[in-house]
Amino acid sequence: MIKQLTIIGVGLIGGSLARALKRAGVVGEVVGAGRDVQHLQQALALGVVDRIETDLALAVQGADIVVVATPVGAAEAVFRSIAPGLSADTILTDVGSTKASVVAAARAAFGQLPENFVPGHPIAGAEKSGVEASFAELFKGRRIILTPTKNSAPQAVTRVRTMWEKVGANVVETGVEHHDEVLAATSHLPHLLAFSLVDTLAKLDTKQEVFEYAAGGFRDFTRIASSDPEIWHDICLHNSPALLQILARFEADLDKLRQAIADSDSEYLLQVFTQAKAARDQFCEG
Amino acid sequence: MIKQLTIIGVGLIGGSLARALKRAGVVGEVVGAGRDVQHLQQALALGVVDRIETDLALAVQGADIVVVATPVGAAEAVFRSIAPGLSADTILTDVGSTKASVVAAARAAFGQLPENFVPGHPIAGAEKSGVEASFAELFKGRRIILTPTKNSAPQAVTRVRTMWEKVGANVVETGVEHHDEVLAATSHLPHLLAFSLVDTLAKLDTKQEVFEYAAGGFRDFTRIASSDPEIWHDICLHNSPALLQILARFEADLDKLRQAIADSDSEYLLQVFTQAKAARDQFCEG
Repeated sequence: MIKQLTIIGVGLIGGSLARALKRAGVVGEVVGAGRDVQHLQQALALGVVDRIETDLALAVQGADIVVVATPVGAAEAVFRSIAPGLSADTILTDVGSTKASVVAAARAAFGQLPENFVPGHPIAGAEKSGVEASFAELFKGRRIILTPTKNSAPQAVTRVRTMWEKVGANVVETGVEHHDEVLAATSHLPHLLAFSLVDTLAKLDTKQEVFEYAAGGFRDFTRIASSDPEIWHDICLHNSPALLQILARFEADLDKLRQAIADSDSEYLLQVFTQAKAARDQFCEG
Repeated sequence: MIKQLTIIGVGLIGGSLARALKRAGVVGEVVGAGRDVQHLQQALALGVVDRIETDLALAVQGADIVVVATPVGAAEAVFRSIAPGLSADTILTDVGSTKASVVAAARAAFGQLPENFVPGHPIAGAEKSGVEASFAELFKGRRIILTPTKNSAPQAVTRVRTMWEKVGANVVETGVEHHDEVLAATSHLPHLLAFSLVDTLAKLDTKQEVFEYAAGGFRDFTRIASSDPEIWHDICLHNSPALLQILARFEADLDKLRQAIADSDSEYLLQVFTQAKAARDQFCEG
């Protein structure tokens, strides 16, 4: 049971976590905190949070668990703001898509990594964003990656793990760098490519027809380009080493395909497409 | 009413057209033709076609309309094979995703572009392929692009247009080059990128986890990488001028984003992502 949960940044993820914990009946009071009062008032009106607070140090006072659910670019400033209000018992976690940058932000803000700090990342995004898009079932059956630091206390990890399990998620633990590498490949690069493709097409003279003639395949392919620009701007800049590495591989591979098309290298094209289809069919059924 | 329809290549598109015309009650006999007897027998067993034939010249004899629904790489060979069996009245159309190459194939095979030849392309693919994936509703509300040649007789165009309208499609007409440019942008490039990304990730040491950690966004983004490799190999090689042109633009734009990430150019990233989201939200709702 969580007596008081403070969520900083009540958007899709923060709002859905609040809704899910309330529905599971495992939380007392949910405090919603952030900079934007109007936004917080909306969360209050929707019943997602029970109380709102714009002073972050006040917001975390008395909390059993504090969840930072802002864009990752705000992590360090948030950590600095909440530091004066945290008690020795408060568990601190986050939901950021980049873990090395959040850990570095915590180290910078707190001077060292707190024992009660357990970085986390729910793999449960959506192209929708904001508290109005939040829903209690978002984490059901989804994977939550925790990346405990060497300072994280086992009981703090257990507390955060339990919170996520109560909302139906599958919790796994891995290292910070490994998380960032894998997510760069499977999430950050695809988002970058989707944004980039839509931007390229939107600049064409034939833009109007290009989008009109688009079929279901294009809609699926570009769905993630409807994601929140600020969130993804932050992710790209805060996971740049891993993202640039996988992007370089992608660019090199794509250029080989370009060369193969230019050379009518039938065999190479067929081989790559066949391998890709096999991998996709095997790992991502449906 | 179509007394006899001959479909060459009874896969997803050819099979779905046969099913849809039968359901609409506007076709007498459907003849399925192709090289692969087993495949044709499956179409016959499924009731998709009424009669099968591996000799293409025989298959088109007596047909009111012949629909070539093979991968585009086979178009010229198919046109050559059917030429002896076509009567002066037979309407000939196709469903290829690349139109300049199919028109060139017809010119090469027939010596000139027949009056009764009306190139066409239903924008109704799917990542599934084969006659077993075919279904009568595939074309309902979908766009069919006809690209009549300067030789196409108006009554031939009307005949093909009517056939597609009977299965619930919206028929539009445009020029061959324009079709190929627009489709390169909206369909061929996205498929190439999806195949390329999955191939890049499948070559990683962390391949297993990369796919395991993949969320819904990745599934949607890579769905088209489960498409038929042969069909897409043909499309890439047969629309290479338009595809290489849009690919070059994409590669240049992506490289600017790469540079912006390397330079922490916050403003540029946010601007591109914001533009892309706006364009995608505006044109592809849902």
